[in-house]
Order: sequence, then structure tokens, then C-alpha cells
Amino acid sequence: MTERFEKVVDDIVQRLGANNVLLGNDIGERYQGDWSGVNLQRPIAVFRPANTADVAHIMAVCHSAGQSVVVQGGMTGLCAGATPQLNEIAISLERMSAIEEIDSLSMTMTVLAGTPLASIQDSANEAGFRFPLDLGARGSCTIGGNISTNAGGNQVIQFGMTRNLILGLEVVLPDGTILTSLNKMLKNNAGYDLKHLFIGTEGTLGIVTRAVLRLYPRPLTKLTALCALNSLQDTIKLLRHLTKSLGGGLGAYEVMWSDYVDYASTHISGLNSPFDGRFDVYVLVEYEGVRPETDANLFEEALHGVMEAGLVSDAVLAQSEREAKNLWRLRDAIGDIFQQLKNAISFDISAPIGSIPEMLELISQDLHLSFGEIVKLTYGHLGDSNIHLTVATGKQSDTERISEIVYQRTGLFHGSISGEHGIGVTKKKYLTLSRGDSEIEVMRKLKVLFDPKGILNPNRVLP
Amino acid sequence: MTERFEKVVDDIVQRLGANNVLLGNDIGERYQGDWSGVNLQRPIAVFRPANTADVAHIMAVCHSAGQSVVVQGGMTGLCAGATPQLNEIAISLERMSAIEEIDSLSMTMTVLAGTPLASIQDSANEAGFRFPLDLGARGSCTIGGNISTNAGGNQVIQFGMTRNLILGLEVVLPDGTILTSLNKMLKNNAGYDLKHLFIGTEGTLGIVTRAVLRLYPRPLTKLTALCALNSLQDTIKLLRHLTKSLGGGLGAYEVMWSDYVDYASTHISGLNSPFDGRFDVYVLVEYEGVRPETDANLFEEALHGVMEAGLVSDAVLAQSEREAKNLWRLRDAIGDIFQQLKNAISFDISAPIGSIPEMLELISQDLHLSFGEIVKLTYGHLGDSNIHLTVATGKQSDTERISEIVYQRTGLFHGSISGEHGIGVTKKKYLTLSRGDSEIEVMRKLKVLFDPKGILNPNRVLP
Repeated sequence: MTERFEKVVDDIVQRLGANNVLLGNDIGERYQGDWSGVNLQRPIAVFRPANTADVAHIMAVCHSAGQSVVVQGGMTGLCAGATPQLNEIAISLERMSAIEEIDSLSMTMTVLAGTPLASIQDSANEAGFRFPLDLGARGSCTIGGNISTNAGGNQVIQFGMTRNLILGLEVVLPDGTILTSLNKMLKNNAGYDLKHLFIGTEGTLGIVTRAVLRLYPRPLTKLTALCALNSLQDTIKLLRHLTKSLGGGLGAYEVMWSDYVDYASTHISGLNSPFDGRFDVYVLVEYEGVRPETDANLFEEALHGVMEAGLVSDAVLAQSEREAKNLWRLRDAIGDIFQQLKNAISFDISAPIGSIPEMLELISQDLHLSFGEIVKLTYGHLGDSNIHLTVATGKQSDTERISEIVYQRTGLFHGSISGEHGIGVTKKKYLTLSRGDSEIEVMRKLKVLFDPKGILNPNRVLP
Repeated sequence: MTERFEKVVDDIVQRLGANNVLLGNDIGERYQGDWSGVNLQRPIAVFRPANTADVAHIMAVCHSAGQSVVVQGGMTGLCAGATPQLNEIAISLERMSAIEEIDSLSMTMTVLAGTPLASIQDSANEAGFRFPLDLGARGSCTIGGNISTNAGGNQVIQFGMTRNLILGLEVVLPDGTILTSLNKMLKNNAGYDLKHLFIGTEGTLGIVTRAVLRLYPRPLTKLTALCALNSLQDTIKLLRHLTKSLGGGLGAYEVMWSDYVDYASTHISGLNSPFDGRFDVYVLVEYEGVRPETDANLFEEALHGVMEAGLVSDAVLAQSEREAKNLWRLRDAIGDIFQQLKNAISFDISAPIGSIPEMLELISQDLHLSFGEIVKLTYGHLGDSNIHLTVATGKQSDTERISEIVYQRTGLFHGSISGEHGIGVTKKKYLTLSRGDSEIEVMRKLKVLFDPKGILNPNRVLP
């Protein structure tokens, strides 16, 4: 222990109590890395603040000591952003979990940053509302992490990314200043809207401690169908068609390529395509409405229309919630697939929708040229121009070459190397493929402005 | 002419041609002030760049000379933000008007900043889409100004403010650097999302030169009704009710208080309330849908429901587009009223919806206490928690005291002194009523970071 570190720990023990300062072997696996499993590292201490004032105190002390920290939420990130680096203290917000207020007139909810997403969804439901952010990690991820990474998920097409669901924020800056902008209004043009500096910047400019979330009414119907199509071009046409005919009710448009469906059907027990034939692309379509009497008819007619027009070759309409869940199993299978695949790399690239077919074709060609037959699974949120690609040769040593091919081709098509997961540590060196020099220069200047000593989540995001 | 100024002018004449550099008496009224009419001032020169490279060149020259500039779009602002101040050069983007691309697969439109909003709306329509930003100044205002002020308008309840409609931006920084982030994707988490620094910051951090806009499908039906209610509380209940029963289709929820409707009916010729009785509050409700066969029925049933429940006392449902326009005339009358009223002040405050009744009551009381009988008209976008208040005693000298009462009471209820018009010059000194010290400190630091010489739209927004 250096003297500086000892002084910091002594101070924080006094503030939080010894129970909430973990050292050495008391630091469990939970604090050593995120879901990516990359670069696991034990932090030199874990601080567990109970409230915003604690966080501000910790940052003031660390700022003045020049001590680097990493901030941790549910640890479900996929880019090693919350994974400790050498000589970092972890600040875990796990004790800061509370739903403080539901304002049903303003349709807002005020929560602490460490609150799990699933609790927020449940509380909104109980109050007759809905918080429409949803992703696979809902049970473990926390809203602070969702905000810091501007999480996407399954409902972006209808409600936008996390950014769109945040009305107000309270943030602790790297020097311990508390910045309070707990706005509850849809409209507020009184000066700069500072919250956007802390949404999607992965904790590098400040620590989100509290948020005002926007709630929505609950839909009264939810209808699900799986469509089989013969080309990706048709899939894009179908998206535009349904966007028009279903109005704002198109709730999900999840595409699975045949490489994904074939692999899932073969390797996950009990999972089968519900169609007799084999098709190029499959689309899970969800429709949400407020008219239980007529919504099912409307949805069915929309599907008949696109089948008659020859856009969709076959379709299965779920007749019950159970059947809908069954259709979603095919999409959700990626969780199980990922556990079976060795050294698989998962991409979350995005690109302008019209360029996606050509971009995927080029990536596929170049991967096969370099590696011959490999596992390549393609699926994702086509409705948001965001595609997931899981690639595995089985060899860890191929990771870099595979990443270079995928990201370089994405850049060629003005795409983004991260549609939703963020940059963290693992994608840092590819950022220049999606962002220009002047953009990165401005990002750097902002980082230095907010964190001149470089102690808050350093060495993340920026190359 | 100082020598410094002369050198700048010589340089820019060489670049743009003498035609596009206006001096002295050639500088028309258009360049001397915005629609607020406050502090009119002739700029020392007007530069009219044709493209982004011109803007970058002008800024590089002005930055190196330490020459202050004000950026001008359609000049429809209401806070004197684009009105020149002493010794400022105006950069007018009027020549930078073009719709460069409509990408119907990505559903995006790329435009230059000087393009009028109405042209954008029309072009979107012609291409089978809709750009859902809409405000009274649509014929004159330009998209660059809409972006810089994060304009609100009539459709916020369904589509959000301008911020929500912007996917990508190109910006010229105060030192002439071109920052290009012309993203076309709904999802892009590759590093900091810099565009938010230039949306709603009123041109103080950079000059928006080009934008990628998000397009939406056109609705197939549009239904309009005017409802009469007996209390503001009921109006809020009605809003929540319709938000649920109409789903995402609630397109407008514009409220007019009896003070407004009485004044309009008395002072604007040919304008009458369509109801026999007199009510406390009137609400214009618009519903947009995609099902021509059933939408009218649904909307009618929803209205019947709220009347039977006793929430709405009377209602008129427009049976044609002409009738709908007629109903909107009552709301749109504010334009004519404003021209008749002498020295009227218009506020665009917002507050958490539940607090609005009490806040308005307090403001009303305190205005009457201070000024006795005055003209006070209340109306606005209650669906977005944003209320307009037009107050007139007839005396210019009362402006300050009236503003103080309104803004101070707004601050008490955690409201915002500007829901949509922005701060500009006229609201600068009240900003502290809506924003805390640490917020304003961060705004200041950002301003210094981007514009260390303070030459780009200086003395605006920040107190």
C-alpha cells in the first residue's frame, strides 16, 4: 500500500464504515470484470457509497490524491469499461438502489443510479405505467449503467435509446462537485442541456447518481409474428411497409439471418424454425396497440397484405402469449449459443439501412477469404440499423484480425463500430474508423475539461 | 473602420465577392434584429457564405483577428439571440439553403442549415414522408435556427423537440475547425455524441452548417376536436386519459384558458368560441392515425367516454379539414392579438405538470396585486408541460417587474424560464432561477473551451 492510497482508504473508511470498504481477498469476483470477461483485474479497493454525498466525498478525496477510480453498476457491460485497470479503486453503486418517486401526473420516476432495470420496469408496471427500456441483462444491469452507455435494447424502434427516456440527471463530477439537473419537464430550453454530456459517455465525464425517467402508458395489446423472407432487400422493404401501415405501433423488428437460425436450430436443443422450408431471412415483428377489439385484425390484415404482395413468403402469428414467447426463444437463443461457442466475438455494428446488405456481404466474403469456413451468426435490430454479428474460429488469437475486418468494412460504409454496447476498452483502438480526427479531438478536450487529472474511468473510450 | 476590421473585410470580400459582403447603408433591416424587436442594432458588416468551407474560412479569420460575430438564420427568434450587438459582424446563412439528399431507406434528409423549415416539410411530403417539426414561423425560420434553439412547436407531444429529430450534424467551431458528424443511424454509441453540444446552445459553441434529419411516415388520418372543461385539474386528467386511450396517436394537446378565449373572441373580428356557455379551460386535441376506416370512430368514442365521465363538459368534433382549421384559428389568433397589444411580454415557461395549476394561480395573484387589472392571456402546450403567458399593462417600463414576478414564481415550482424559445439576451439574467450555480459554472467552462476568445455569439445565454 502506498501512503497516498492508505490515506484515501482511511478517509473513506471513516465516512462509509469498514463494512463498505473492501480490500484484498474480501474483493469478490463481481468487482473484477464485466460480462465480456476481458482483462479481469482485482481493484485495489472497493468503496460502496450509500448516497450522492458519499460519492461526492469519495471523488473529492480521490481527486485531491490523484487516485484513479472505476465506477461499477451491474457489471453487465460487454466492452470491459467497468473492469478495473491496474491500481484503480472501484466505486460500486450497488447500495444506491431506490425508486424515490413516481409522479403520475408528470409521468416520471426518480431513481438512484444503482437501481436494477428490472425493478424499475416492475415499479412502473405496478403504478400503471411502463418504462420502455428493455434488454436481456434487465435483471442485473442498473439504470446508471444504462444511462452511461446509452443502452439500446429491444424497443428502440418505438421509444429511442436510453437518452430519449431521461429527463433529468444528478451527476458527481471528477472533482466531487454535485451537478443537479433533476428536470421533470418534456421541454426545458433554459441554457445548455448538460445531461447529454453524461449519457453515453461511459462514465468518463462524471458519475450518474440519480435520474428522472420518462414513463409511458402501458399498451393494451401486444401481437407477435415471425415472418420468413427470401432476401435482405425484401426485409428492408417490409420494414418501411410496416412502419407506414402500423403507425407508431411497430414495437420490434428483429431480424435473424439463415446462418443464425440454422445454427440455433442445430445446436440448441428443443429449438426449431416453425417453417417447413428454409429461407434467407427471418423477422420477428411485434405490434403494440391500445384497441383490444380491432388490433389483432389490423395486424393480421397487415401480414396478409405483405404476403400477397410477395414480400413475405411465410408467416406465423402467435395466438397466445405463450406462443409469442416461443417465437422469441429463437431470438433469445443467442445467450445459450454464446455460452457454447469458444472464443466467439460479438459485434454490434450499425450502418445506414440501405448500405447494410452490401456491407454484410463484403464482411462475409472477407471473413471467408481470411479464415475459410467459420461460425458467423447474423441477427439484430434492423429496425434501428443495428446488426449483431457473432464470429468464432475457435481461436483466441484470431480476435484481432476478425475485429479489423469487421470494423474496417463498417467504416467504409459510414457505419458505427458500436450501435449500442459502447466503446469501453475493447473497441478503443477502432474508434477512428467511425469518428473523424476533429471529433476525437473534441472528445479529448471535453475529457480534459471535466477530468483534468484523468482519474475517473481513465483509458476508456478515447484511443 | 478599425484596421483590424478592414483586414477582415478585405479577406472575406476576396473569398465571397463584394456582393456577399454588405457594409453601411447596404445592410437592410433584416439583419438588424429578430422578431422580438428588442435592441435593434446594425451589424458592422454582413457576410453571406455559400458553403461550409466559407463559414470555416470566415471563422478562422475572425478568430485570429479577435472579431466578434453573430450568426443569423431566419431571424424569427424571440429572445434577441441573433440580434447584433455593438461591433459585431453578422454571418447570414441565407445562401446556404438546399435539400441535398432524401434517403428513403434510412428515412433521413440531409440539408444545409439555411434551409427554411417549410421547404423541408414540403420536400418531405413530396417524397411521401413527414418532417414533424412545426411552428408558426415555419415559412421564415431556418433549420439551423431550429437546431440551435432546440425548437419545440406543435408536435412535441408525439415526436419530441428538434433534438429528437436530428441524427447528424456538421458544425463549424469558433476557430474555424469543421466538425463533421453526419450520422444517418438511429443507433450510434461510438464515443461521445457531440451533436448535443450544438443543439439548443443557441449558436454559442459552434455554427450548425448541415444536418441529417429524421423523417417519419405520413399519418393517414388527422382528427381534431375542441373540448370545453370546467377546471385545469380536469384538463390534466383528460391529458392522462387520452394519452392512454389514443396511444401514440395523440398529436396535439393545446390548452387555452378562458382569459385567452374571452380576449380573442372580443378583440379578433370573426372569431368566436363555438360553445354557448363559458368554460374555464378549452383544449384543442388532435389525433393522428393510420386507419382511415376506424380512426374517426375511435376518436369519437374516446370523446364520448370523457364526456360521460364528466371530465369534458362540451366538445366540438371537426367534420372536415376546413372545420379543423377553423378550430385552430382560435389558437393561432395569438399572432393577431400580439400585434394589437402594446408592449406585451410573452413567456414560454414550463413546469412539472402537477405543479402548473398552483404556479399559474400564484403568478396570477401576484400580477394582480402589483398591477391591478391587466391583460393576461394563458395558453400553450400543456401536453409538454409548457405554458405561454402573454402579459400587458401597456407600459414598457413594467417589463422588468412583470418578468421578475413570472420567472421567480416559475423557479419556486422547479419550472423552467424557457420551455422552448431559449434564453438569448432577454432572459439571461433570470437563468439562475432555473439553473443552479454548478450548472451555470459548467456551461461557462464549455463556452470557454469551445470559444476561448469569446467571439461567437458572445454575451448570449450565460448571465
